[in-house]
Amino acid sequence: MAVSVLTLLTDFGLEDPYVGVMKGQILKLCPRVRLVDLTHAVPPQQVSIAAFHLEQSVDYFPDGTVHLVVVDPGVGTDRAMLALRTQTAAFVAPDNGVLTRALRLLGPPLEVVRLPLPQGSSATFHGRDVMAPAAARLACGASLSDLGERWEAPLTEWDFPSAVVAPDRLQASVLAIDTFGNVCLDLSQQSAPATLALGSVWQLQGQPLLMGRTYAQVAPGASLLLWSSHGLLELACREARADQAWSLRVGDRVELTR
Amino acid sequence: MAVSVLTLLTDFGLEDPYVGVMKGQILKLCPRVRLVDLTHAVPPQQVSIAAFHLEQSVDYFPDGTVHLVVVDPGVGTDRAMLALRTQTAAFVAPDNGVLTRALRLLGPPLEVVRLPLPQGSSATFHGRDVMAPAAARLACGASLSDLGERWEAPLTEWDFPSAVVAPDRLQASVLAIDTFGNVCLDLSQQSAPATLALGSVWQLQGQPLLMGRTYAQVAPGASLLLWSSHGLLELACREARADQAWSLRVGDRVELTR
Amino acid sequence: MAVSVLTLLTDFGLEDPYVGVMKGQILKLCPRVRLVDLTHAVPPQQVSIAAFHLEQSVDYFPDGTVHLVVVDPGVGTDRAMLALRTQTAAFVAPDNGVLTRALRLLGPPLEVVRLPLPQGSSATFHGRDVMAPAAARLACGASLSDLGERWEAPLTEWDFPSAVVAPDRLQASVLAIDTFGNVCLDLSQQSAPATLALGSVWQLQGQPLLMGRTYAQVAPGASLLLWSSHGLLELACREARADQAWSLRVGDRVELTR
Repeated sequence: MAVSVLTLLTDFGLEDPYVGVMKGQILKLCPRVRLVDLTHAVPPQQVSIAAFHLEQSVDYFPDGTVHLVVVDPGVGTDRAMLALRTQTAAFVAPDNGVLTRALRLLGPPLEVVRLPLPQGSSATFHGRDVMAPAAARLACGASLSDLGERWEAPLTEWDFPSAVVAPDRLQASVLAIDTFGNVCLDLSQQSAPATLALGSVWQLQGQPLLMGRTYAQVAPGASLLLWSSHGLLELACREARADQAWSLRVGDRVELTR
Repeated sequence: MAVSVLTLLTDFGLEDPYVGVMKGQILKLCPRVRLVDLTHAVPPQQVSIAAFHLEQSVDYFPDGTVHLVVVDPGVGTDRAMLALRTQTAAFVAPDNGVLTRALRLLGPPLEVVRLPLPQGSSATFHGRDVMAPAAARLACGASLSDLGERWEAPLTEWDFPSAVVAPDRLQASVLAIDTFGNVCLDLSQQSAPATLALGSVWQLQGQPLLMGRTYAQVAPGASLLLWSSHGLLELACREARADQAWSLRVGDRVELTR
Repeated sequence: MAVSVLTLLTDFGLEDPYVGVMKGQILKLCPRVRLVDLTHAVPPQQVSIAAFHLEQSVDYFPDGTVHLVVVDPGVGTDRAMLALRTQTAAFVAPDNGVLTRALRLLGPPLEVVRLPLPQGSSATFHGRDVMAPAAARLACGASLSDLGERWEAPLTEWDFPSAVVAPDRLQASVLAIDTFGNVCLDLSQQSAPATLALGSVWQLQGQPLLMGRTYAQVAPGASLLLWSSHGLLELACREARADQAWSLRVGDRVELTR
């Protein structure tokens, strides 16, 4: 039998056994599934970061992988919990826009169902009681129609204002800041203008910035722009934190000029 | 062959490869076992938190799961290391009370053995040298009598003072504080008085507190009481840390009045 | 078919999905491999700590385990990426000395190849694009010659100055500091002089230090020397952080006298 893969992406952290408990639930229903953590360090209820992490990840998993996303500020409200399939993957998540970016990459879902809330579910841990079991059943071969009623409404979309891309001016939002303080901007390599060429020099907050290829191109402590490993424009600072050097936070708007 | 599950719960953190090394030892002896981390962020040697995390978790794993708990302030003393079975699960842990709460939930052990300390074991890492191998052998089908001599003494018990539950007054200890600063009290939903009803209002430190169902019932920054996903009374503060708002730590006694 | 084990050791942290993405890549190529995290909390680009963690770990894994190490300050330069085998294990890592200590323990490699950099690899994430796929193929039975060209140059070595061991004087470098603040010195039990006997008393910074067996031998807050679980001399402080008590950092030189 094929081995299926199930990824987990949450804002639960690793201090409590919440993630472990979801894995226990999953292994009850699908004992041979391969579990992979994407990250559980999404800042509490930050749907935008989770959406970005998921987008970064989906291309690197085997076809048929089930992605379980539990970043759910609406737990306890009547927001829907959905399960859906694309050509190459399946997802279980609350309908809060956390899938927007991944679905833009993989293509629209072929089928979507809403997961029912079973009697006796806790009011605060639908990840354990509803979404993890649904993901486990998908990973072990259940069809979407086994899991819930077809969901016809459009999915909730979530996004920052679009990037502005002109020959001598770029505007984009800070999408995420990684462990090293590198600032990831919501501007993809595919959408980049020709002017954002290697070796070009841009201005940020009145300071010049080289568009480079590797951190080693600038002196320790100096900043540069480069394409990150996930194909987005990154503002980095060699051997230092770019977020602190430039006082930037998630959601901030950055303007680069020439 | 059935796939068995083995969980790990320690205070080792994730900075050192201690947990990885225990997994290596386990996979040497039981290559197909499914490993699940409960948490490795138990504050160093805090048996009470580990006992609580284990109690929260055991119901959500498949029957026959082996739970390995290495929170062991007595390592290097002559405290016993035990392996035991209940109807539905098996445990390997030092005899320091870390199993008290889980065994109260699952029922008393059917059989208990003491693990011998092999020649050449390190003095400081019995998790790797003694307990992980024993857990691996259990997961791969060994019987308890293969692992050690029957242990007839009562297990070490560990607990906070009992909750006091009166119609207009509740007293309970702070059992744990989660990643989000939610304060978990050692008072279970089953033991709760009728007066702790949804919508009732209580006093804590002279401030009123609603007994609610979801965080969304109060304004951002305001606190409420609710039943947590693990069935214990929780003091939470919407989009803020309740532990800081109320200056509470693990072991503190909380009094709620009407 | 035998189940193979693949360990991962990086400085990626767990906040971003980088580790998860490498696992996705691995499971695409080798769906049944067992993945074990050693640690991902190596301080950014600290090759010495990673080398030590790897040395601590390799003896505790099944024969044939593949160890993937991505601590790679030279990413984007022309440093080589290598795959190699010893009698009992295989490794994939950049050629920066991170394998020095593990290979000293296990014996020199039998065969080494250099991994080619495929067209289209990112400039900043060779762990995902080059090293993880190579490790996966090794774990699923590929031979080294399938992965790259034979590498004849000597491997880059990395090490601290040797320990000085005299009957009444020891000098060694701080190799690592663990989560609990215990200070691990680069002096192994095998190389220790007879004078470093249990019960002997040494001087550090003018203070006496007992060579003991367990933390319980000294009062809370007091320090002692002992052999750590990994067979290295450790400076510990009962229920406190020895690194802070003695103002020590990684790379510092420590002198003990009698």
